[in-house]
Amino acid sequence: MKRNIYLSNMDLEEALKIYFNRIQSCMSSLKKQEIEANRCVGRVTAEPVFARCSSPNYNAAAMDGIAVISKSTFNANEHNPLILEEGVDFETVNTGYMIRDPYDAVIMIEDIVEIDENHVQIIVPASPWQHIRPIGEDIVAGEMIVPANHKIRPWDLGSIFSAGVRQISVYEKVKVGIIPTGTEIIEPHETLEKGLIYESNSRMFAGLVAEYGGEPYGCPPVKDDYHLLKKEIMKQVQKSHMVIVNAGSSAGSKDFTSTIISELGEVTVHGIAIKPGKPTILGVIQEKPIIGIPGYPVSAYFTFEAFVKPLIFKMQKMKQPKEETVTAITSRRVVSSLKHQEYVRVKLGEVGGKLVATPLNRGAGATMSLVRADGVLTIPRNSEGIEAGESVEIKLLKDIYDIKKTIVSIGSHDLILDIIGNQIQTENPDIHLSSAHTGSMGGIMALRRGEAHIAPIHLLDEDSGEYNISYIKRYFGDKKMALIKGVKREQGIMTLQSNPKKIENLSDFTKEDIRFVNRQKGSGTRILTDYLMKKKSINVEDITGYEREMMTHTSAAASVESGSADVAIGIYSAAKHFGLNFISIGFESYDFAIPQEYLNLEIVQYFISQLKSPIFKKELEKLGGYQTEEIGEVVIID
Amino acid sequence: MKRNIYLSNMDLEEALKIYFNRIQSCMSSLKKQEIEANRCVGRVTAEPVFARCSSPNYNAAAMDGIAVISKSTFNANEHNPLILEEGVDFETVNTGYMIRDPYDAVIMIEDIVEIDENHVQIIVPASPWQHIRPIGEDIVAGEMIVPANHKIRPWDLGSIFSAGVRQISVYEKVKVGIIPTGTEIIEPHETLEKGLIYESNSRMFAGLVAEYGGEPYGCPPVKDDYHLLKKEIMKQVQKSHMVIVNAGSSAGSKDFTSTIISELGEVTVHGIAIKPGKPTILGVIQEKPIIGIPGYPVSAYFTFEAFVKPLIFKMQKMKQPKEETVTAITSRRVVSSLKHQEYVRVKLGEVGGKLVATPLNRGAGATMSLVRADGVLTIPRNSEGIEAGESVEIKLLKDIYDIKKTIVSIGSHDLILDIIGNQIQTENPDIHLSSAHTGSMGGIMALRRGEAHIAPIHLLDEDSGEYNISYIKRYFGDKKMALIKGVKREQGIMTLQSNPKKIENLSDFTKEDIRFVNRQKGSGTRILTDYLMKKKSINVEDITGYEREMMTHTSAAASVESGSADVAIGIYSAAKHFGLNFISIGFESYDFAIPQEYLNLEIVQYFISQLKSPIFKKELEKLGGYQTEEIGEVVIID
Repeated sequence: MKRNIYLSNMDLEEALKIYFNRIQSCMSSLKKQEIEANRCVGRVTAEPVFARCSSPNYNAAAMDGIAVISKSTFNANEHNPLILEEGVDFETVNTGYMIRDPYDAVIMIEDIVEIDENHVQIIVPASPWQHIRPIGEDIVAGEMIVPANHKIRPWDLGSIFSAGVRQISVYEKVKVGIIPTGTEIIEPHETLEKGLIYESNSRMFAGLVAEYGGEPYGCPPVKDDYHLLKKEIMKQVQKSHMVIVNAGSSAGSKDFTSTIISELGEVTVHGIAIKPGKPTILGVIQEKPIIGIPGYPVSAYFTFEAFVKPLIFKMQKMKQPKEETVTAITSRRVVSSLKHQEYVRVKLGEVGGKLVATPLNRGAGATMSLVRADGVLTIPRNSEGIEAGESVEIKLLKDIYDIKKTIVSIGSHDLILDIIGNQIQTENPDIHLSSAHTGSMGGIMALRRGEAHIAPIHLLDEDSGEYNISYIKRYFGDKKMALIKGVKREQGIMTLQSNPKKIENLSDFTKEDIRFVNRQKGSGTRILTDYLMKKKSINVEDITGYEREMMTHTSAAASVESGSADVAIGIYSAAKHFGLNFISIGFESYDFAIPQEYLNLEIVQYFISQLKSPIFKKELEKLGGYQTEEIGEVVIID
Repeated sequence: MKRNIYLSNMDLEEALKIYFNRIQSCMSSLKKQEIEANRCVGRVTAEPVFARCSSPNYNAAAMDGIAVISKSTFNANEHNPLILEEGVDFETVNTGYMIRDPYDAVIMIEDIVEIDENHVQIIVPASPWQHIRPIGEDIVAGEMIVPANHKIRPWDLGSIFSAGVRQISVYEKVKVGIIPTGTEIIEPHETLEKGLIYESNSRMFAGLVAEYGGEPYGCPPVKDDYHLLKKEIMKQVQKSHMVIVNAGSSAGSKDFTSTIISELGEVTVHGIAIKPGKPTILGVIQEKPIIGIPGYPVSAYFTFEAFVKPLIFKMQKMKQPKEETVTAITSRRVVSSLKHQEYVRVKLGEVGGKLVATPLNRGAGATMSLVRADGVLTIPRNSEGIEAGESVEIKLLKDIYDIKKTIVSIGSHDLILDIIGNQIQTENPDIHLSSAHTGSMGGIMALRRGEAHIAPIHLLDEDSGEYNISYIKRYFGDKKMALIKGVKREQGIMTLQSNPKKIENLSDFTKEDIRFVNRQKGSGTRILTDYLMKKKSINVEDITGYEREMMTHTSAAASVESGSADVAIGIYSAAKHFGLNFISIGFESYDFAIPQEYLNLEIVQYFISQLKSPIFKKELEKLGGYQTEEIGEVVIID
């Protein structure tokens, strides 16, 4: 069991300073390249662009009209209209036409009266050079159009082409070699056996490199083999300006990256005080930057953004665009360690007039936390975290105008949320639904903290047997609340279709060979499960896996389907989705709690109208297990 | 002389409403298209993307360490270390490895002590499922990753590839056919005879279409011929989702566009109350949008932005990004007509702590006004203009952080400004020089209005024969001013190299066959010219072209070089640049006036250091006609 446990924990700023200083010489490693002018948008000039010719390169009519000799028009006035003859006194010109000798002025078409085919009349004299664009008015030959180090924009092309420029000297694009590693990593076209993972990080890196103006070069995943990896690194260093090795940067027994880099060149920094992203390697081989990025997708993203992004911009002489930020209020406490700077993905919502930031799953493997995130909250290294209600700066990952048109839903998970969210965005691309899954009680708490507009809940009152309303009364006190009715949905016991362990009812869960997978505390399904177990006097300590918690119906169902558990409790649509056997334990009400003050918001009204739409009911029928009699009705709670 | 004078003058908002209403059906004309997932960044989903598999699709080690059976570790503690045997009690796992039966927990490598090759010791028990990522923790098979109408970002690829998605259904890109027209328009590789113009607009359109996510289709310029143009329009309508006809939209005698569109389909709107851009045509052929855009490059840009841009975004189901705006103070009055909404290009500068907007050349043919612009000020239709000192909203064309790091120079033109500007941006891409050319007196006035940091001037005091200082004293009163010394430069009479009209001195200018071209009033060269004429008792009314004014040395020289004038007065470097004959009339001081309060700004200090640099002096030597003894010295004016 050979391991390399020796990461440092260097401050991000310090690491950047030391490393960028070390690789100073790379900053001018891009060659100049002559490219055609019509492919230059977005590229950076390596030399100033000079006009090859003037524009206009002749004296040109600035208006549609007639070209005249100004001297011969000086006597024209209302009492003495002047008659001019075509070919002698004037020449017809359209805008842009050349003014030929001896003409030296243009009279606009609106100011002439046609007498016959060859004669016009004017009543105002023309002053010399009026309505004529003199040669070089816009651009003079030899004039500098744009300087060096200028990123060319589409509207620069007007001047560039007018000035006869065909070739432009730009910096070549930075070539970034990307090496995914890992014996368990497979390519998209391969078959996913258990224990294998589809390669995704190098695709994300390639997308980011291209977005930042560089050229990504990928390769198939390299197995965890010292010699194979060393060979691939040497190959990519030859081909590229910069190389990323993805994973193998940590302290695992197959982590060769750091060893190989130090053999071929130098490891400048290994281990940065950021989370996620700590086991990052910053190295140099043959004066080219080589960066070892951790394998977890979210670590990979933040490490790329912290080190590779600024490097790409600097090497290409581009200014890194300032990140767009907003100020938001944190809805709850976010604890962080003094040991590192932490990047927390957050959902943002404009709730009750405030922009509220709610932390998402902080796991480094949670790629969906990036997809769902509206922004990133950076907690500095010397901080223990952020208190609830604190005002924080958030780096935006989404348009703030979209965020403000988003219904924020936090609470219990149901597949119908995905469906209604997609339907809303399809029918009206200006309105969005964002839903976070924290369980029903989590939703109630989020509503209380002002994090959400609505909370989908299904909470059984053990005394009355009623759903939802008693919980709202209990937790919101005097606050005026309402319930938007959702669906009645069927809960049940889920097993494999063949039900190999013959599970028929809840009592079977305690059997020695039955592995149960539960839902998290505070979820409606957990409350129901606890309630039913108590009612049937089943001792939950006798159930293997009662403490193993899944966050959603679908992940519970997935555990059963994969064989990692034998049984779970969940809704019919989840069981059906995974082709599981389903033994009903009854219907429950899945509704949306909402403060009355939000009922009239445009986005909420739109949400209700979509709930009621025939197209949505049809989707629910397809899923099965839902009753929709009251859907979209608003119940005011006194 | 057949003309079509019948443009309407419709409000922009109304035109957009009428037209977008008329072409409602085009908004869903883009087909769905399956593309490979690794080419999907920036595309818009036509259908939701669902996970093909779970991620992880097995219970995976979340840490490097050992997989154990949690039950068998419950007795471990500091006093009773537990010894585990590899292959029996544990299995070594790296992050991401599959957890095999019967193991159900991972102990981190940091928490184990190696005893020998096959044995480790632990002192803390493992709780069930600790450090294990359960199947589907990140993504559950069948889960919606992103909804329809979602523009895919690089970081969405993490989830998309992890979930085994290979193909994504997106909308095809909108195909925009672009038809440049005009007999005088030539392609970049053709030879520019007098009277011809290089085609530039269709290149700019193509750049903008691509930037907004569409696919541009160009064609060579179509001559002003009814049949040729009709044929090309019919062809492009078949191939594209939308067609732009550039020029021929006005009222000139060769303007066929509107006739052809109404014959093939319908002209919905012709004539919009915007400036520049009035003669725009909004039409429909075979239910495809066809837009006639005026020929002047600046009109072309604004018309494209007003009509084509929103159309491209709408057709592609993309949200048009909000324009970034800033609030600035106008430094002078901008008069506009009640008849139209006007787009005024402005330079922005942070001068004396305020963001100041200074209008640029308002000519519709001035492509360089777009290149130079930092932003656009829109003056509404019902307004007569903006007063000096008014607070206005400016749409940014440049990064505001760059604008704040820009030395704003307004005043007299000299080639050395281009050179020093380029040198600054090359040496330090974070600092910029923006220079506007208004002549010396214009510079003095701009400094007084607080529009600029520095004003390059060369103003002769007729009484003392001294340069610059007396003017500063006269125009700035008590304000503490300084002068950054620039160059001494040689002024002279410029004629063709062969000097065919034998011009030897200023008196020759009055000869019958001599056509002079002058500089604008307020420019240092004009003041010098007026002064010399007065001194030599030459009656300027006897000089042909004395009232013809050019804004820069180079444009005056270009007029002489092209033969549109016989003689001009200007600096040596301009004469040399155009290969002209130069008869010296003496040296003058070209310096930079500056309020003392700006002397210590970082950007000004940098400017001074670059003036003094050997590399700059070398460039001046190459140009010739400059003396640089005092360059960069600061003279405080009491």
